[in-house]
Amino acid sequence: MTKILSINAGSSSLKFKLYEMPAETVIAEGEVERVNMPQSQFKLTVPDQPDRPYTETQDNMTYQEAVSTILTSLKSEGVLDHISEIEGIGNRVVAGGEIFKDAAVITPTTLNQIKELAKFAPLHNPVQIEYIEDFQKILPNATQVAVFDTSLFTELPATNYLYPLPYDYYEDYGARKYGAHGTSHRYVSHRAAEILNRPLKDQKMITLHLGSGSSATAFKDGRALDTSMGFTPLDGLLMGTRSGNIDPSLVAFLGQKMQMSYADVVTILNEKSGLLGVSGYSSDQRDLENTAAERPQSNLALEMYANRIVRYVGAYMAELGGLDTLVFTAGVGENSPAMRQTIANQLAFLGVKVADSLNQVRGKEQIISPADAKVTTMVVPTNEELMIARDTMRLMTNQK
Amino acid sequence: MTKILSINAGSSSLKFKLYEMPAETVIAEGEVERVNMPQSQFKLTVPDQPDRPYTETQDNMTYQEAVSTILTSLKSEGVLDHISEIEGIGNRVVAGGEIFKDAAVITPTTLNQIKELAKFAPLHNPVQIEYIEDFQKILPNATQVAVFDTSLFTELPATNYLYPLPYDYYEDYGARKYGAHGTSHRYVSHRAAEILNRPLKDQKMITLHLGSGSSATAFKDGRALDTSMGFTPLDGLLMGTRSGNIDPSLVAFLGQKMQMSYADVVTILNEKSGLLGVSGYSSDQRDLENTAAERPQSNLALEMYANRIVRYVGAYMAELGGLDTLVFTAGVGENSPAMRQTIANQLAFLGVKVADSLNQVRGKEQIISPADAKVTTMVVPTNEELMIARDTMRLMTNQK
Repeated sequence: MTKILSINAGSSSLKFKLYEMPAETVIAEGEVERVNMPQSQFKLTVPDQPDRPYTETQDNMTYQEAVSTILTSLKSEGVLDHISEIEGIGNRVVAGGEIFKDAAVITPTTLNQIKELAKFAPLHNPVQIEYIEDFQKILPNATQVAVFDTSLFTELPATNYLYPLPYDYYEDYGARKYGAHGTSHRYVSHRAAEILNRPLKDQKMITLHLGSGSSATAFKDGRALDTSMGFTPLDGLLMGTRSGNIDPSLVAFLGQKMQMSYADVVTILNEKSGLLGVSGYSSDQRDLENTAAERPQSNLALEMYANRIVRYVGAYMAELGGLDTLVFTAGVGENSPAMRQTIANQLAFLGVKVADSLNQVRGKEQIISPADAKVTTMVVPTNEELMIARDTMRLMTNQK
Repeated sequence: MTKILSINAGSSSLKFKLYEMPAETVIAEGEVERVNMPQSQFKLTVPDQPDRPYTETQDNMTYQEAVSTILTSLKSEGVLDHISEIEGIGNRVVAGGEIFKDAAVITPTTLNQIKELAKFAPLHNPVQIEYIEDFQKILPNATQVAVFDTSLFTELPATNYLYPLPYDYYEDYGARKYGAHGTSHRYVSHRAAEILNRPLKDQKMITLHLGSGSSATAFKDGRALDTSMGFTPLDGLLMGTRSGNIDPSLVAFLGQKMQMSYADVVTILNEKSGLLGVSGYSSDQRDLENTAAERPQSNLALEMYANRIVRYVGAYMAELGGLDTLVFTAGVGENSPAMRQTIANQLAFLGVKVADSLNQVRGKEQIISPADAKVTTMVVPTNEELMIARDTMRLMTNQK
């Protein structure tokens, strides 16, 4: 058995899972929240003692302290006899540009390339590099692997990855669609195919990752054909706090109107827009469902949220030339029967239908369309950490 | 019979038609090109002498000179005995905001409102105001009417006209979808319904205005449900020189990368992008069709152009919950059998189909789908000037 640690790190939080591979058994998992902020929180859970998590609170826990806390606690809580039992570490990396068409073993070369690509994910890649380097210091003999959110989309056709801009901007500045959430779309598309016992390459599939960040991906011939996130994860669907696509003129109009810099406008589009902006209340779809009856803006925000998803499914069905399978995943996708029902109702004429009894499921794998529906609609909880562990295991095996 | 002059003015050119109403007979038509530029060109054609147009060339013809040239030539060429025979003048105005839900008779109040709305169309409204005032000086007794490109879209549901931005930006700055090409979409949708002898309100229809500027509009229950142009005419489909929608982050990224102002980035998105930007060759789809075999970028630009149309049709079919009628209009829509065929092929599974023999038509009203097609696809040449004349006549009649 090989022990592999999956690291899924954002700018101020980190989720981890320790697997025994190839059995894919989770032997510990946990998270660090509020890294580099007051009251950083660390939590480790061991599957056979789920009610007694190990926790630690500390002000301004650094990246390096987060790494050492994870490793120390795995030993102190008896999960490992020695931390060197960890043979592989898989790290989610947001931006892999056009270079990384697959996950990659960390070497001085690949690490430099990831540093270079920080220009496309200035809030994420540097943090992920920091974690990789911190783990290297403590576990120099473990194989580290970077799993890119973008590699799935290096296969998009040029028609779909290029923007209608002067062609030079693609060549000179890398202005193209890179997508995001690729690890999640990859996991749920393959898992859905497995559940249906029908190869992904034989299906026209749309996967909807609906969380605080949201994206849609269309699959055809086993490959991603199109995806809604673009040059950055701001593009596409309406999200918790992100606008998704808007008239690009508005960036300039608002910047000029409010005398704001480019960076400030982009911050507003990323952090103050979407469900939060329209509702004027919350970025959380549950809060909006709870207040939709008395707050017209809560209701409007939810209607707009559903409408953008419906538009994307229609657009992708047209690109795919049909649809066999529609998959819901992530926070909203896995846990909101109401939102799934709204979306299915609007897509009824395209053959999408959910059965009320099946659709009540939350956070569980389930086919929610009735047997006679033209399109098979399903819920498949995402599992990015498992995908990361699988990629890491695969590359470690190839290396040998 | 009432003589009505239709004025369709852009920033540096003007098209006009003189109608006898209600017969809708064109008794003269013409254009002025390169207004306020060297070598301004004036041309007047009288239907019974189409081969002998009256022309004039002059450097830097002003707006006021353009107006007096039109009126003087109508008399000198024998179309009118006296220019006061013109009882109504209809003017296309680009931005009508949320105020003008229909065309409006020009009064001091409405003229001031149009001036206010210039903030939404700084290149267009001021020019159109100038023409209105110039005609007022020479023909103070004629009823002038403003016909807005946006009024069709004041009926959009909030779900579709609002952007997922902080709600304040709508209330404080008017940041919403206004659409454009409304006069054209209105004309062709009504004309298509007339040809099919089936009321517009009983059809789910998508009208594709594909010219150097391009837009798509979805109609349901006799009203516009959605449209692809947005806060400005930059949004939506890929156009001759306009990008259409892109990741809004790219506006900031490119502005920062090239150290350009908001205005400069928007100019590039409006003037150097779209077919021209991708192909690196031409904004004219005919030039690209002619070079597609030897120039990969010409071919790519055409593929991207078709792809964005296909995505919008799919998205709008999903919003409409079906499609009865698909209408092509404007330069490319009326004159490119190849582009129509490409689009129809990609939409085949949605019931769109064109018959090769019928599809060879250019610039003529024709149903191009075979009788057994689920969706009726047709070419309907647009006629904004006639729509302007009809609106003007209607408001003159109401006034009496």
